[in-house]
Amino acid sequence: MEAQENVPANKPSGQLVIIGGAEDKEGDCTILREFVRRAGGTKARIVVMTVATELPREVGENYIRVFERLGAEDVRIVDTVEREDATSATYLEAIEKATGVFFTGGDQARITSILKGTEIDKIIHRRYAEGIVVGGTSAGAAMMPDVMIVEGDSETNPRVEVVEMGPGMGFLPGVVIDQHFLQRGRLGRLISALAQQPAVLGFGIDENTAIAVSDNKLEVIGEGAVTVVDESEITHSNIGEILKDEPLAVCGAKLHILPHGYKFDLKTRKPILD
Amino acid sequence: MEAQENVPANKPSGQLVIIGGAEDKEGDCTILREFVRRAGGTKARIVVMTVATELPREVGENYIRVFERLGAEDVRIVDTVEREDATSATYLEAIEKATGVFFTGGDQARITSILKGTEIDKIIHRRYAEGIVVGGTSAGAAMMPDVMIVEGDSETNPRVEVVEMGPGMGFLPGVVIDQHFLQRGRLGRLISALAQQPAVLGFGIDENTAIAVSDNKLEVIGEGAVTVVDESEITHSNIGEILKDEPLAVCGAKLHILPHGYKFDLKTRKPILD
Repeated sequence: MEAQENVPANKPSGQLVIIGGAEDKEGDCTILREFVRRAGGTKARIVVMTVATELPREVGENYIRVFERLGAEDVRIVDTVEREDATSATYLEAIEKATGVFFTGGDQARITSILKGTEIDKIIHRRYAEGIVVGGTSAGAAMMPDVMIVEGDSETNPRVEVVEMGPGMGFLPGVVIDQHFLQRGRLGRLISALAQQPAVLGFGIDENTAIAVSDNKLEVIGEGAVTVVDESEITHSNIGEILKDEPLAVCGAKLHILPHGYKFDLKTRKPILD
Repeated sequence: MEAQENVPANKPSGQLVIIGGAEDKEGDCTILREFVRRAGGTKARIVVMTVATELPREVGENYIRVFERLGAEDVRIVDTVEREDATSATYLEAIEKATGVFFTGGDQARITSILKGTEIDKIIHRRYAEGIVVGGTSAGAAMMPDVMIVEGDSETNPRVEVVEMGPGMGFLPGVVIDQHFLQRGRLGRLISALAQQPAVLGFGIDENTAIAVSDNKLEVIGEGAVTVVDESEITHSNIGEILKDEPLAVCGAKLHILPHGYKFDLKTRKPILD
């Protein structure tokens, strides 16, 4: 399997900060601090996208408070509840001027169903290609790949039926992202997601942990670990023979556990070790 | 690292049935059925060791009922509450005549603290070398290696402090066994256990799932999967540099997910594929 194909050579020049949920908002805020720093620090203009949550006000204001405390120059909420909202001139202008766009947690299916293919979607992708930072936590992390985990069961052995896949927002093609990873026992779910597209890389991101991606490389930030599962060189899988409630077999996958400070090359599919 | 060293060449000729806990006792009893079959079927003489549990009566009688229903010729309980019990002539004679010895769940530290080094321990090992079947579920599975997981946290990223290791009963050297594996999110705990002895193989056994071991080979039985983590060829670990509350890094581990019917060779450390 030639896996590099999944990572486009002409990748955008922006950055991603992809958070496994439950990031610290009261203490050092290591991860959100890094997001603000990459978005321009005290010059950062941040748009908080609350599309995933059904509590946009509480969730959004919480992030406004943190980002303002960390010194961002401008922080505003864009709350799209239905697809029509995604053409609002005020919203489009805010995103046009933003140096960082942050997607909150909630339900990743809301992000894609409300935003995918809209003007907002196009502008965020263009701004991302121009160099801004796109961040997301939990649902806002799950939606980053071109094919995402829509929902699934935790704490189970891998079976096709435990996970529902669907189109993601396509900021980081060639991977699958899972969140709250070791805290919710999601190895089985990630393996199930990968079974259907073994050439992609699987990233299981722990709570209060993130990957910062730029230039086809990523660096881990935060408290926990990122579990990388690479099935591109597996010696066997039974995916072609089983029905969807039958247990998956995978032989010869590669596994990396990467905590804070560790780097990974998305093109060579290898940890970058000094 | 030369890992095969951990699997002795002159291994005993008996069999092991190592169960990840919560095996079916009401329906088909796939796993317990296989234990009885390997112990001699309708000629099986089974001793149920309740040493791990503080409810020996309930737990023991439950197994007597199942094993008798499955047609074993003789089933009896050996309940050692303290080390002195492990010299009881009645108990020793029962084990001497047994074709299968089964360890229930409970606390694996009770198994080693009460039995290790006693007459019972010696007789079970001798009988195992002579060809009988030794089975165990949950705590009775954890105690199988020479170094076992005594206790530990579930649903966490790998850190040295999340797992306490100690001497096991030594029926299957060169491995670490974890149980209730994907059901309790124990990848982090297994990686933590392996970090301190990366040359051993890690087996995470799901509930109602087992490995049947004979002749340095194992076969998976049951509903879930066995997750095999092999760190013998890792390219990097930070274990030498971190303190015990700091997150572990592991690069280049191998991962296999093996459901019912899959086989694994403990000497070559590879799945046996047709």
